Amino acid sequence: MTLSEQMTQLGKQAKAASRQLARLSTSQKNLCLTAMADALEKSGKEIQQANAQDLGLAEKASLSAAMLDRLKLDEKRISGMARGLRDVAALPDPVGRILDERVRPNGLRLQKVSTPIGVVVIIYESRPNVTADAASLCFKSGNATILRGGKEALHSNQIIARIMVDAGRKTLSQFPEHAIQLVTTTDRDAIRELLSLTQYVDLCMPRGGEGLIRAVAECSKVPVIKHYKGVCHVFVDRDADLKMATEIVLNAKLQRPAVCNAMETLLVDKSIAPQFLSMIVPTLNEKKVEFRADSESQPFLKTGKVKPAAEQDWSTEYNDYVLNVRLVGNVREAIDHINHYGSAHSDSIVTRNEDRAKQFLAEVDSATVYWNASTRFTDGGEFGMGAEIGISTDKVGARGPMGLEELTSYKWIGYGTGQIRI
Amino acid sequence: MTLSEQMTQLGKQAKAASRQLARLSTSQKNLCLTAMADALEKSGKEIQQANAQDLGLAEKASLSAAMLDRLKLDEKRISGMARGLRDVAALPDPVGRILDERVRPNGLRLQKVSTPIGVVVIIYESRPNVTADAASLCFKSGNATILRGGKEALHSNQIIARIMVDAGRKTLSQFPEHAIQLVTTTDRDAIRELLSLTQYVDLCMPRGGEGLIRAVAECSKVPVIKHYKGVCHVFVDRDADLKMATEIVLNAKLQRPAVCNAMETLLVDKSIAPQFLSMIVPTLNEKKVEFRADSESQPFLKTGKVKPAAEQDWSTEYNDYVLNVRLVGNVREAIDHINHYGSAHSDSIVTRNEDRAKQFLAEVDSATVYWNASTRFTDGGEFGMGAEIGISTDKVGARGPMGLEELTSYKWIGYGTGQIRI
Repeated sequence: MTLSEQMTQLGKQAKAASRQLARLSTSQKNLCLTAMADALEKSGKEIQQANAQDLGLAEKASLSAAMLDRLKLDEKRISGMARGLRDVAALPDPVGRILDERVRPNGLRLQKVSTPIGVVVIIYESRPNVTADAASLCFKSGNATILRGGKEALHSNQIIARIMVDAGRKTLSQFPEHAIQLVTTTDRDAIRELLSLTQYVDLCMPRGGEGLIRAVAECSKVPVIKHYKGVCHVFVDRDADLKMATEIVLNAKLQRPAVCNAMETLLVDKSIAPQFLSMIVPTLNEKKVEFRADSESQPFLKTGKVKPAAEQDWSTEYNDYVLNVRLVGNVREAIDHINHYGSAHSDSIVTRNEDRAKQFLAEVDSATVYWNASTRFTDGGEFGMGAEIGISTDKVGARGPMGLEELTSYKWIGYGTGQIRI
Repeated sequence: MTLSEQMTQLGKQAKAASRQLARLSTSQKNLCLTAMADALEKSGKEIQQANAQDLGLAEKASLSAAMLDRLKLDEKRISGMARGLRDVAALPDPVGRILDERVRPNGLRLQKVSTPIGVVVIIYESRPNVTADAASLCFKSGNATILRGGKEALHSNQIIARIMVDAGRKTLSQFPEHAIQLVTTTDRDAIRELLSLTQYVDLCMPRGGEGLIRAVAECSKVPVIKHYKGVCHVFVDRDADLKMATEIVLNAKLQRPAVCNAMETLLVDKSIAPQFLSMIVPTLNEKKVEFRADSESQPFLKTGKVKPAAEQDWSTEYNDYVLNVRLVGNVREAIDHINHYGSAHSDSIVTRNEDRAKQFLAEVDSATVYWNASTRFTDGGEFGMGAEIGISTDKVGARGPMGLEELTSYKWIGYGTGQIRI
């Protein structure tokens, strides 16, 4: 089979499986998920053996220690995957929710009802536990998945997918064996082939670095939901409670700098900058945060490590102990800065002034905006979605954290009594 | 300026305008729409002069009479456009609806609020009144539009857009002059250039024939919402009220055969086929409907014009007095036929059997499914949306008829009191 034929077969099988999946009841799906969780735990040894193969190859290829750590599946991580599956089983079924209902003057009753999307392709990097997470969220929402993980985790991903499918089939005779499929070829063109199959694939969600996501979006003919990067801002307004602002700013930068919802740029109203910066700089210095600062803020940062901010710094996601700092004249300038340089991910204003807060919340064109809270809350778990398959900064389809509901589409159902159009 | 620079300028201007548009209040937007309606009516002569230029060129180019008719703007059609704008002004503002609200255990209050999408590109064919319709729906939903109409309507489209923008600016000092822009070059590459501007353009909606839509979807780097064609089905189950089924089938086929929600294929349960077909064939013969029939149904159609159905007929949108007919053994076969050959647009089951109806409604994977009603209801007006910008058979973003609400995205707003992540 050519690569194109292989991918077409995966797509076709997934589409057929998605039709069968859509017929499963909530309890049937939950039964399968629980059985998959049990099977993953029982097969710990087998998983670790496959994982050892991946780790061996990765060591030979001299991958970094951080990469090896992401790749590793120990007993604790395997239980973690199983627990994740049980958590998903416990969540409400996102399919079949009535989103709208109306009766037309002719008596036709219309319902807008949530449905699975169909076939979802997930493209991700090295962490093999994503295989179980993504597959379970798609399964619960009635979607067939085609998974394409990093090639360095191939053995681990294969065994995880196989265990899940086997457990599903043992548990339920109607379990569609192609509900969860893995791309096993490491050919890079596989992604392009797969994402050209608009007749079979309904959605692609790439997870990983900006480079991966841009490459996927560039070649895809099917809709892609994604976020490229998280360049998040906190704006400290002249009417901020400065103690609150201190806590929020330090939390947004320091609590976990390597994640997408951490703050990269701090915007401070000029009139309170001297006082406010003096409150936060000692802690930031202590944590060895490097400042990239505009000329106006530099004088207030000089006890730390300061570089002048270059133009491209304002749109850089450092994922590190680096912070852009800029002084602005007012909320208008803050909003314009964020809309110009930001990544439309998560941005926060700290103020006691309701008018300015409302202006900021309305005009900052980002997936999530906060008033007097840390940007770090943009997360499916923190939003009460129970689990997260990703975060979107797109505007068509889901926006912000994506949980089970965001993995659904909808259809309109018309209940008639013989209505015809006149 | 190169074509690429021209399109980039349009995109950049539209993005800036979309930020200003998002700040307008409902009453400001309605005031502008009403002023635009008045201006269109007052400028009837000017519009007709521009339209006469288009018509003159079209005649020289020997366009068909049907094409000339679509192109023509008489006084009645101009009032129609104005009335359309007033109707849109009267509709509720789709922006600012609270779609979800939750308070997290830490006290953070989250609201999911509808927002404009941003910049919408509309690509359409010859009818110039689409310019006013599409621009007004986008304007009311807070979106900046870039319009690309058929080149044969360029003079008409230009004057309509200019009148609308001028009226907006005269009415409201904050009216963003680039809220409604028209692509004036007839270079075919303009579309490709425009739809590569992912940093400025948020959505594209092509309206027209399948060829146009496929060409747009093929080249676009921004999300495209669309439907390729309408291959709609009615399935008459063995437990149908045959009188009701007769009315629905005749309505779905005959009331307006040239539209996307008209029926192309009739599926009939074998056990009632002789009786049911004898009830509908006389009227269909009278209307000179040509049948494309499977071998089993042919004997019951022989009083009419019958051809054996070829494989590709089952997925053809005739938009004409042609009807595919196939007998099926049960609802399962009907569902499988529709999911295989259909266009996921609008499909109906006629039956008194609730179980089979529910199976059909759940498993037919189409944007709109009906029980005991004609497929012809799939339409923004019929759905009570007030106006329609198109119909989508996609699964990401809007599905089914698209009105004002379907021209919105959403954002999450977090109202805190100093919450930080622990």
